[in-house]
Amino acid sequence: MSQISALPEEYATPLAPYLPLLGPHELPHLTLTYATSLDSAISLSPGTQTHLSGPISKAMTHHLRSFHDAILVGVSTAVADDPGLNCRIEGAQSQPIPVILDPSGRWEITESARVIETAKVGNGRAPLIIIDSKYLDNDNVVQRNKMLQKYGGKYIGLDLDEKGRFDWRSILLALKSLGVESLMVEGGATVINTLLGTDETRQLIGSVIVTFAPTWLGQGGVIVSPKREFDDEGKYEPPRLKEVKWIPMDQDVVLCGRVTRK
Amino acid sequence: MSQISALPEEYATPLAPYLPLLGPHELPHLTLTYATSLDSAISLSPGTQTHLSGPISKAMTHHLRSFHDAILVGVSTAVADDPGLNCRIEGAQSQPIPVILDPSGRWEITESARVIETAKVGNGRAPLIIIDSKYLDNDNVVQRNKMLQKYGGKYIGLDLDEKGRFDWRSILLALKSLGVESLMVEGGATVINTLLGTDETRQLIGSVIVTFAPTWLGQGGVIVSPKREFDDEGKYEPPRLKEVKWIPMDQDVVLCGRVTRK
Repeated sequence: MSQISALPEEYATPLAPYLPLLGPHELPHLTLTYATSLDSAISLSPGTQTHLSGPISKAMTHHLRSFHDAILVGVSTAVADDPGLNCRIEGAQSQPIPVILDPSGRWEITESARVIETAKVGNGRAPLIIIDSKYLDNDNVVQRNKMLQKYGGKYIGLDLDEKGRFDWRSILLALKSLGVESLMVEGGATVINTLLGTDETRQLIGSVIVTFAPTWLGQGGVIVSPKREFDDEGKYEPPRLKEVKWIPMDQDVVLCGRVTRK
Repeated sequence: MSQISALPEEYATPLAPYLPLLGPHELPHLTLTYATSLDSAISLSPGTQTHLSGPISKAMTHHLRSFHDAILVGVSTAVADDPGLNCRIEGAQSQPIPVILDPSGRWEITESARVIETAKVGNGRAPLIIIDSKYLDNDNVVQRNKMLQKYGGKYIGLDLDEKGRFDWRSILLALKSLGVESLMVEGGATVINTLLGTDETRQLIGSVIVTFAPTWLGQGGVIVSPKREFDDEGKYEPPRLKEVKWIPMDQDVVLCGRVTRK
């Protein structure tokens, strides 16, 4: 994997206020970040990777990674992209821990997964995979767990809520107990839409950093757009960002902000 | 209707290269412009108006209007918003002509429509309504046409293509024959998606100016996202902008560019 140049200071400076605040806090600082087209698509279709953003915004992603203890993605992203989830800036001082949300143990991770290969050569860390507790003693999971542990990774069992989803607060507490003080959530769409979809989960977001590329992927793409949460009177208040800053980065723009809280 | 302050020079200057080029050209300069949420929604639901952008980007819209001979919207926007479609900057030198695409004569325009009220008091022009030729001698249309003509507006009959749509080239030629050298297309989503949806129609776009507001309207909104046009080999090349400029305007950002041509 190619090295990435450091983000030029003219772009790094305006980003600085949105980086994780130094602790200690009850929960890790959660940075929500993704890159989309003008029509809010992160890829052309499920299971494919679409190159959207240019070299500067790509450097920005790796710059952000260097400020986080961990990076989280959903299992679909892990399966589709086989991502490295490391910081590829030359001379990176430390590497974030990859965290994968895989409730049903769908990711058949092996020694040849890019994230393991990266860990083997010291350019990244082995992942923490969060799984429904009830699958923890499943034979396949036990085998994979042994492999992960060789490189410093492991499975973490958490219980699902009544909707069959992980509770975000529990995820953050579990990571905090392992020393994670800052978490960058990178996708995919399901994970992002879930986090943005309720007032309760939005409370957990410390900062939002979104890259827009000047293209329309067209109808049928994988879309970032939260489900609407209606209040008791059937009203819907769209989530809005405050402390907004738009940073043009060549062809792309990077939006920084914080989610308003009720 | 309230007056709008002039767009401050710091925002007007970077916009200038995207304003209509002085003629004569075969076709009017077409500026495609709209305002959306981060998830590419122009409103919460069909037939409703959602306030998205802030005062500076609103001033920008009226600034743009002052540089165009005509403003075009689809009939759904006319019916839903009852828009003024005028330039409300204090001391505006001239007013653009409202143009409404209304293939089946659905808009029951009366003397009390805002666009007529605005024309009556000299703050705007009466509209040109483009309709399927076959409805031109429909009784209702004849009556409305008389009313429009009192104020300088009228119906224009054009034939529909085999898909039941107007041909954009014919629209532009018809407007050109009436002295329109520059046209600002403001929406709604159907009109925008049609224009962006084929290589043939994209060729007609002179510049694109999009405002993004830092909010997510959530699933179920009225979305700007073109249908995909596949080539003979079943490939899809997403339309992309060139000569891109992002202009932050307070909470919003304004994207300027031109559509790349094959």
